[in-house]
Amino acid sequence: MINFTVGPVQMDEETRKMGMDQIPYFRTPEFSAIMKENENLLCKFFDAPQDSRVVFMTGSGTASMEGGIMNFFTPADKILVVNGGSFGERFVQLCEIHELNFTEIKLEHGEPLTRDKLETYNNQGYTGMVLQLCETSTGLLYDMNMVGDFCKRNNCFLFVDAVSGFLADKISMKEMHINAAITGSQKALALPPSMSFTVMDAEAQKRCLSNKVKSMYFDYADYLKNGERGQTPFTPAVGTLLQLNEKLRRMEKNGGIAAMNKAAADRAQYFRNKIKNLPFKLFTDPNSTSNCVTALTPTKPGVNAHKIFEIIKDEYGIWICPNGGDMADKVFRVGHIGSITTEEIDKLVQVFEDLTKRNLI
Amino acid sequence: MINFTVGPVQMDEETRKMGMDQIPYFRTPEFSAIMKENENLLCKFFDAPQDSRVVFMTGSGTASMEGGIMNFFTPADKILVVNGGSFGERFVQLCEIHELNFTEIKLEHGEPLTRDKLETYNNQGYTGMVLQLCETSTGLLYDMNMVGDFCKRNNCFLFVDAVSGFLADKISMKEMHINAAITGSQKALALPPSMSFTVMDAEAQKRCLSNKVKSMYFDYADYLKNGERGQTPFTPAVGTLLQLNEKLRRMEKNGGIAAMNKAAADRAQYFRNKIKNLPFKLFTDPNSTSNCVTALTPTKPGVNAHKIFEIIKDEYGIWICPNGGDMADKVFRVGHIGSITTEEIDKLVQVFEDLTKRNLI
Repeated sequence: MINFTVGPVQMDEETRKMGMDQIPYFRTPEFSAIMKENENLLCKFFDAPQDSRVVFMTGSGTASMEGGIMNFFTPADKILVVNGGSFGERFVQLCEIHELNFTEIKLEHGEPLTRDKLETYNNQGYTGMVLQLCETSTGLLYDMNMVGDFCKRNNCFLFVDAVSGFLADKISMKEMHINAAITGSQKALALPPSMSFTVMDAEAQKRCLSNKVKSMYFDYADYLKNGERGQTPFTPAVGTLLQLNEKLRRMEKNGGIAAMNKAAADRAQYFRNKIKNLPFKLFTDPNSTSNCVTALTPTKPGVNAHKIFEIIKDEYGIWICPNGGDMADKVFRVGHIGSITTEEIDKLVQVFEDLTKRNLI
Repeated sequence: MINFTVGPVQMDEETRKMGMDQIPYFRTPEFSAIMKENENLLCKFFDAPQDSRVVFMTGSGTASMEGGIMNFFTPADKILVVNGGSFGERFVQLCEIHELNFTEIKLEHGEPLTRDKLETYNNQGYTGMVLQLCETSTGLLYDMNMVGDFCKRNNCFLFVDAVSGFLADKISMKEMHINAAITGSQKALALPPSMSFTVMDAEAQKRCLSNKVKSMYFDYADYLKNGERGQTPFTPAVGTLLQLNEKLRRMEKNGGIAAMNKAAADRAQYFRNKIKNLPFKLFTDPNSTSNCVTALTPTKPGVNAHKIFEIIKDEYGIWICPNGGDMADKVFRVGHIGSITTEEIDKLVQVFEDLTKRNLI
């Protein structure tokens, strides 16, 4: 099967080979040294300010979304939550569950957050803002420079879910005034799913250390304390963390974040050029689209998006990525992060062409 | 390195080979079918009553300890918590964090829970009880038939942490009147660390569905609902779940739980016979010891247990398992779950003999 979903994505050969290795005991100085290197390289690739730290969470991206909401905010905060799709909606639900004081900026699926809309919240006493870098359900990429500028002026703590955007799209915590950002192992890092990572500046750490959360598993103060010696409070997905180390070191050697961003942009462009003449409409404005995924709407009347996913899976051995909820019938997505070659993209395009010939799209 | 810790432990060849495979997209009927089989086989191996279910949690064993405490109990419960070591202590902390009404039965390290002690809590209105099957920090195995009998008479909801005990020691939810029990991927199942599993009877499920927990990641009602279609609410460690499936099927073919329990007992006995003449004292009464681990105290004055761990790691390429806290200097452990051969045990015994000759133990 060729995998064009947005996670888990195809892993590199180097990562796969390590999957065969026995997993070492980890309460050792040897593993601590690897974890300290993981922390330093993640901080570097997020362009995080000096003295930033990383919390290594065994859990999905949602675990780190919830952990951040619990550790960075208190009921004294007044939070802006951007909801432009399934993952923005999840932040709304998390703020509700944890009884935080928040305002939802609800956007249509695929609708960018404009400066005009954001400025209506200027000088209203907001102390926090949470949003995705890329809303994975539509591929919408938010204008994070604009958001960061707003947060700086308003002294808002900015928490960014970059789970699927990291490496595919530019993120700089320094330039974008981001206090904390998360990513997951199974997205553009192309590791097995199991871990998510939160990079935190000094302010984010201060909040973790002063907030008392009603949870042991999400007590970031404990993670930060254990992290000082390169450890986690509980047994992490050790194998994934070793694969992370190999991947981060390899990235560092091969041109770092700039090279990763460029490769992702080139691959997205290659795919989007190839499908120009196919009966699909880009769901999201190309000027506001992430490099990680392309959301497409079939233009031919009566064509069901989820059915296309099923046919391609069952008849061609390829996974594209179905949408959920009220987009399920109208939109599907093609992810192009991870170890995807142009030959594989060509193959998918041939499948689309074949479906056109078969009158199925 | 040879790994005699209690997790992550050495994986089987079959499991390791699967570590190289690309990880499939999982929101498919194909993956759902595998998950339903995982659920059925885990229920079978825990000897769970009919209509039992499994919650598949991406996280360490502690995640499922906390998830259980949050989902099974409310402040209306009156809970007995057995604290005989680091992991019993963790249950105490979890009950404190979640502001539950509980009584701690504090035992010395390695001290069994006796019938006399337990009976002092009889007919006192307790509605719940939580404890380990095996307290991994000392290897103490609780008398679960006695505990189950007490819980049945007192109508106590019984929640058992069998993270390290499952497969090594007998557990039968039916016979022992256990309502919910957990295990972890990196213990006797010998998979990569990343997942923990909670097997629940009908009463446990009822509690999950009626309790409203203040968490998205630990909302077991959502896991049970998604589990009906063989899915999890959030991206799980898909690779580990596929390895779990292969392992459970292989166990089923090779004699099931009885064969696993016997192999663990034989291996524990083999190791314990081999070290009879070495300068160690069994930390825990052999009649109350788990088959998963042997806790040892060096008998020669001045010998530091943690130092032995370091020497064996650095000079012989073998990990034994150090203890933490106030046992660190006096006790070390040898785990013998996972893919450990008698040749490897012989090699460790030779190392101990060499250390005796070198006058280090």
